Amino acid sequence: MKRTIGVFDSGIGGLTVVKELVRRFPNLPIIYFGDTARVPYGSKSKEIITKYAIQDTIFLLSKGVEFIVAACNTVSSVCLDKLKATFKVPIIGVIGPACRKAVSVSKNNRVGIIGTVATIKSRAYEKTIKSLNNGIRVFSRACPLFVPLAEEGYIEKDATHTIVSEYLTPILRARVDTVVLGCTHYPLLKPVIRKIIGSEVKLIDSGSCVAEELESVLKNSKSKSANLEIFLSDLSPNFIHLSKKFLGKRVNRVKMIEIERYV
Amino acid sequence: MKRTIGVFDSGIGGLTVVKELVRRFPNLPIIYFGDTARVPYGSKSKEIITKYAIQDTIFLLSKGVEFIVAACNTVSSVCLDKLKATFKVPIIGVIGPACRKAVSVSKNNRVGIIGTVATIKSRAYEKTIKSLNNGIRVFSRACPLFVPLAEEGYIEKDATHTIVSEYLTPILRARVDTVVLGCTHYPLLKPVIRKIIGSEVKLIDSGSCVAEELESVLKNSKSKSANLEIFLSDLSPNFIHLSKKFLGKRVNRVKMIEIERYV
Repeated sequence: MKRTIGVFDSGIGGLTVVKELVRRFPNLPIIYFGDTARVPYGSKSKEIITKYAIQDTIFLLSKGVEFIVAACNTVSSVCLDKLKATFKVPIIGVIGPACRKAVSVSKNNRVGIIGTVATIKSRAYEKTIKSLNNGIRVFSRACPLFVPLAEEGYIEKDATHTIVSEYLTPILRARVDTVVLGCTHYPLLKPVIRKIIGSEVKLIDSGSCVAEELESVLKNSKSKSANLEIFLSDLSPNFIHLSKKFLGKRVNRVKMIEIERYV
Repeated sequence: MKRTIGVFDSGIGGLTVVKELVRRFPNLPIIYFGDTARVPYGSKSKEIITKYAIQDTIFLLSKGVEFIVAACNTVSSVCLDKLKATFKVPIIGVIGPACRKAVSVSKNNRVGIIGTVATIKSRAYEKTIKSLNNGIRVFSRACPLFVPLAEEGYIEKDATHTIVSEYLTPILRARVDTVVLGCTHYPLLKPVIRKIIGSEVKLIDSGSCVAEELESVLKNSKSKSANLEIFLSDLSPNFIHLSKKFLGKRVNRVKMIEIERYV
């Protein structure tokens, strides 16, 4: 079986998910779409996020993918049900895998969720965790400055330390023992987040949880050659620089598309 | 003469320009479009910014405006010439007025420009100032974190003070006596910027420069009733809250449009 996986995100943050997929399944053909012309999604409305996610899916289907990962936490939170109800192709989001992981590793049943405004407002993580174990208490916090800080590479800075500390203090006061990084950009801030939350609290990266759950689906993949194709809706000035940070290696070639055409 | 003015911006930052226009011309009919579904523009490519600016202009023309202000510094920097070459309607950007003001107030002929990545990369401010007075030295600095900090209302914070200081230090070391706020969001950060640059350096707000230059065009406006209509491509969750900060008063009604349709 050779299945082509489509992965999409609002921008290039989803490459952190691709990085995990490539690490586990080095021979998997992957088509990635990043909606860099309309990034970010996390500060926009449910209606617009849903419209964009449908277009992203239609584009990936036009490339013949047989399985789709909505790597975007905002999309996974706000409109995954709508995507699943609309399209026949199997679509997996990042919320379920991360929640299952969080429920399985938390010892004191107190879990923190950090994400974009849209993700936190949707309460998708909270609802999913409660459906898995109603005894778990969930403490959520929107961290709207994390995406720009990660995108600007403003990581090892005093100001970033201060901002991360201000955002995380309320959930740390709630004595959580597990924190879910509910946005594909957040793994880039892991060093700072780790410093603030200390070494005892478990950090869950939604990207690696998805890759882990895909083991069963993809274990029979027989493709011999790795093949990652990257499509973007805009070649923003700092893409090459950023993609290396997110993917862990340099991207040599990307293709541009007009995403509005996919309706 | 009753002329309807169209004002557009990538998002709601352009309301700082509208605020200045309303203050000077309280009876002017204004139609505002904020492209909140695709905000921000400043981190995107010239091609995408141009495409979006053309659509924004077509939308305003469909509403019958007779004069357009491109309140977006990124658009004014990257593709104002293209807009002017494409459309018959008079279009004014924010670069020219701000540069004329900077040239007239600088005493030591050393001017600082701060703006988005796209604005600074275009060198539009630098070229315009040099064309007015070739003896002036221009020191530019992209400040990509200022827009998210302003949008999140992260103003009176230690972290913001640190970030503003880090961004502005190089142009202050260049001993500028004038700094142009080359982005409609930056007036919100004025209190912090003022603290960092001290009381001697002059701060130029591009929005109020545009309003000042429009005096001659609009002085015969005979409209009796103020009328501001606001159109957006997305009603993002924090629009109402933010619009009050930018416009200085509460916005009671906005209309939604699908901007991709205007081609």
